[in-house]
Amino acid sequence: MHIDHRHKLVVKDLGIDTYNENIIFLRADSHVCISEGFTALTRVIVQNKSNRMIATLNVVTSNIIRNGEAGLSFEAMKRLDVKEGDSIFVSHLRPIDSLSKVRAKIYGKDLDDAAYHEIIVDVVAGHYSAIEIAAFVSACAGDNLTVNEMTSLTKAMISTGNIMKWPNQMILDKHCVGGLPGNRTTPIVVSIVAAAGLTIPKTSSKAITSPAGTADTMETMTTINLSVEQIQVVVEKEGGCIAWGGAVKLSPADDLLITIEKALEIDGEGQMIASVLSKKAAAGSTHVVIDIPVGPTAKVRSQEEAMKLQYYFTAVGKAIGIHTEIIITDGTQPVGKGIGPVLEALDVLSVLQNESEAPLDLKERAITLAAALLKLSGQYPPGKETEVARTLLENGSAYKKFVSICEAQGGFKTPELAKHKFDVLANKKGVVHSIDNRKLARIAKLAGAPKVPSAGVLYNAPLGKKIDKGDLLFSIYSESTGELEYAKEYLNSLTTVIELI
Amino acid sequence: MHIDHRHKLVVKDLGIDTYNENIIFLRADSHVCISEGFTALTRVIVQNKSNRMIATLNVVTSNIIRNGEAGLSFEAMKRLDVKEGDSIFVSHLRPIDSLSKVRAKIYGKDLDDAAYHEIIVDVVAGHYSAIEIAAFVSACAGDNLTVNEMTSLTKAMISTGNIMKWPNQMILDKHCVGGLPGNRTTPIVVSIVAAAGLTIPKTSSKAITSPAGTADTMETMTTINLSVEQIQVVVEKEGGCIAWGGAVKLSPADDLLITIEKALEIDGEGQMIASVLSKKAAAGSTHVVIDIPVGPTAKVRSQEEAMKLQYYFTAVGKAIGIHTEIIITDGTQPVGKGIGPVLEALDVLSVLQNESEAPLDLKERAITLAAALLKLSGQYPPGKETEVARTLLENGSAYKKFVSICEAQGGFKTPELAKHKFDVLANKKGVVHSIDNRKLARIAKLAGAPKVPSAGVLYNAPLGKKIDKGDLLFSIYSESTGELEYAKEYLNSLTTVIELI
Repeated sequence: MHIDHRHKLVVKDLGIDTYNENIIFLRADSHVCISEGFTALTRVIVQNKSNRMIATLNVVTSNIIRNGEAGLSFEAMKRLDVKEGDSIFVSHLRPIDSLSKVRAKIYGKDLDDAAYHEIIVDVVAGHYSAIEIAAFVSACAGDNLTVNEMTSLTKAMISTGNIMKWPNQMILDKHCVGGLPGNRTTPIVVSIVAAAGLTIPKTSSKAITSPAGTADTMETMTTINLSVEQIQVVVEKEGGCIAWGGAVKLSPADDLLITIEKALEIDGEGQMIASVLSKKAAAGSTHVVIDIPVGPTAKVRSQEEAMKLQYYFTAVGKAIGIHTEIIITDGTQPVGKGIGPVLEALDVLSVLQNESEAPLDLKERAITLAAALLKLSGQYPPGKETEVARTLLENGSAYKKFVSICEAQGGFKTPELAKHKFDVLANKKGVVHSIDNRKLARIAKLAGAPKVPSAGVLYNAPLGKKIDKGDLLFSIYSESTGELEYAKEYLNSLTTVIELI
Repeated sequence: MHIDHRHKLVVKDLGIDTYNENIIFLRADSHVCISEGFTALTRVIVQNKSNRMIATLNVVTSNIIRNGEAGLSFEAMKRLDVKEGDSIFVSHLRPIDSLSKVRAKIYGKDLDDAAYHEIIVDVVAGHYSAIEIAAFVSACAGDNLTVNEMTSLTKAMISTGNIMKWPNQMILDKHCVGGLPGNRTTPIVVSIVAAAGLTIPKTSSKAITSPAGTADTMETMTTINLSVEQIQVVVEKEGGCIAWGGAVKLSPADDLLITIEKALEIDGEGQMIASVLSKKAAAGSTHVVIDIPVGPTAKVRSQEEAMKLQYYFTAVGKAIGIHTEIIITDGTQPVGKGIGPVLEALDVLSVLQNESEAPLDLKERAITLAAALLKLSGQYPPGKETEVARTLLENGSAYKKFVSICEAQGGFKTPELAKHKFDVLANKKGVVHSIDNRKLARIAKLAGAPKVPSAGVLYNAPLGKKIDKGDLLFSIYSESTGELEYAKEYLNSLTTVIELI
């Protein structure tokens, strides 16, 4: 390690959380700033005897740090593994080679395996600033990646994370491309498939731009923050789990990219394929069913777009050795009644418990997906898979399995709704003709979901339902009146969310 | 202005310079963070009675701020115009509409006039975070903009900045697309043209990715930080000026975008056209000569690329009412001897003073460009423009004008070289066959240029020169031994910078 021209400083813990970006705070009048010509936003190398990182400089002119001290952000202290009073060294950063690859991509060039590997290694090592990650994510967004590039990115993500090993030859998995509020089939599908005696170690993500991800929903019922070892124990015992993928660092690169994608609210096709398949590969999955809901206000808006994704998933899956089966489903309206972590958990529980008012659409989707997995396994008589899945759900086996999985993950708890509620009533009579999923999702988000798990929307007006003036269309739940007001204000600014004719 | 659900806090000046990004520091355990669900990197609205801004949240867990206090970055305090102890209010940020346009651009859609206007207005208002600007800049980089989009972006930049008005009908201007180390013709061209009695109010930029911009070079000889009013006084008196464009906020949007482009080292065609022409239009220019040097290691590498830029400049220029004349020049080697602000200033002075060792290439380029401007003006007998320009330079009129302009801008000073020097000698005999401009530029930058104006490279081996073993190829100048070492270390890592055959 080359550490000439370095400047020794003493760490001061400023307790500033800059979220994934390493920030170092130096006095503007310090020897190091003056002699090295460092100014705000300069990227520098910071190291102690055992670790080394790249950080972004914030220049300080007040007395919150003294001469000879360097303030470090929370993330930077953790990454460098130092505490207040430790010595660190600051020096010039030589250009990061992989950024020239990012620039090439921005300029429209296709990158190869080696380039993606180099970029992703640097991202995981914390060598990129937030704006550099933003540039990479933007360059790869939309349909800017070729299938070969998607494969390269996927491989790079797999090779920079943990990989789970299983004694079984066949490891099942499922994924939903999302964008459909309330489409929380995973807990039900995993419970059915595990109840069928198959192995399905499911890791899920938190919401990127939606009001709830499966991990957010599961977190309202059990512990999702499991280590690789804990997951292995749960799966050995129960055949399945529903854990948070971010905690096991299956694809740490993806977690870093997603933070920026989320902030920018962008979501590229290639990155999505790489994100999904890298996590599946890292989880050791061999057979994966992918649910792509299609609808005018779902994430995937046309059959054509769905077919394109089907092709990408299949081609990249094949290139990395995963058998994928794509199921294109109806995405014209929310699934179930709840939108938001707790509200969706309540839907899941009512389906698993076979309650009479359980949402039928959620139940039928879960059975379809579970049957596709049973079929992919080849363990059941062809044509009988749907019947098997339905029986396991309806005879209570799936619910029993779900509770056992939650217990194995750390205990089952009952989700609780937010304390404030606002009912949205129909101002005229009619039949529900169309529903704007994006607007409903935004209302749930403004109400607090997913950060406030108990917040969201409870939906009551499925397509085709006859509505009288004054009937309940949906309820907004929120933990603070402030957030409820935001949601209502947004609602009032809209012309239509639910179209009645 | 809607300020419900706001939280009152008292400003604490943390003296942290975050460079153009508004940052607010709030305690993690503060009422506002808990009740609003604010976490690190949340974007929030901060306001006092008269101003309002969007800021990025950094969460603080130490005692550098107390409950009821909000720390603000240097930039944020300036933008909101508050001081320590003032009251501010923090509230939720509603989605910024123009970001949906940025996303559309990322996804490959063309944007219209209204969209660029909306985006640029928000950028100038400080509504975008650094990563959001990075996403926009990346989406527009390379050749991702159509000519219509370049025009829209140019117009948006013009309409969000100051516009200079002149009594004269004809306002001349010049611009060089750059990428050629040492190509510092502007001070000479302006001096000749102003000496010829024409009007040329030149504003120049600082270096983006190069070791020196014209503004950096001029700053070693005079004051460049002039207001619009000061520029008008100088130009009324002398017919010309050479001021820093950033100080007059002719295109504040461009200044903000360039900060991020610089950090990412990207430089898109469309943005470049918009950047150049918006500043020309804002400066009131009617006739502009654009110098495009072409060479294998210059910014523009092929005749074809130069022709494309020629087309873009002409088309966008026409759309916004500026007559442009493009001059494609030789970009195979550095111009003059110096690379770096002071070293280039010394070249400029030696040409203006008609010293015997003055670099001929710089002199001839300046004459060519000045003649093109004289021709564009239509004020001189056709075919005689080059002769007129040469005479004004060689009879000392241009030098006299240059000193007068400097005096009018605040006084003339003699630039001084850095104290450390390292001579790079030829390790074999031969004739100079090719020169890697990019590598020379990087050496000058590692030596400290442009941040350290006296640092850089003094070049001594033009193409075709016969070199003996041990002859001086170039010298590296630096103010610190540390920086000199970086430049030498990089040099040692290279196989060739100057190819001898």
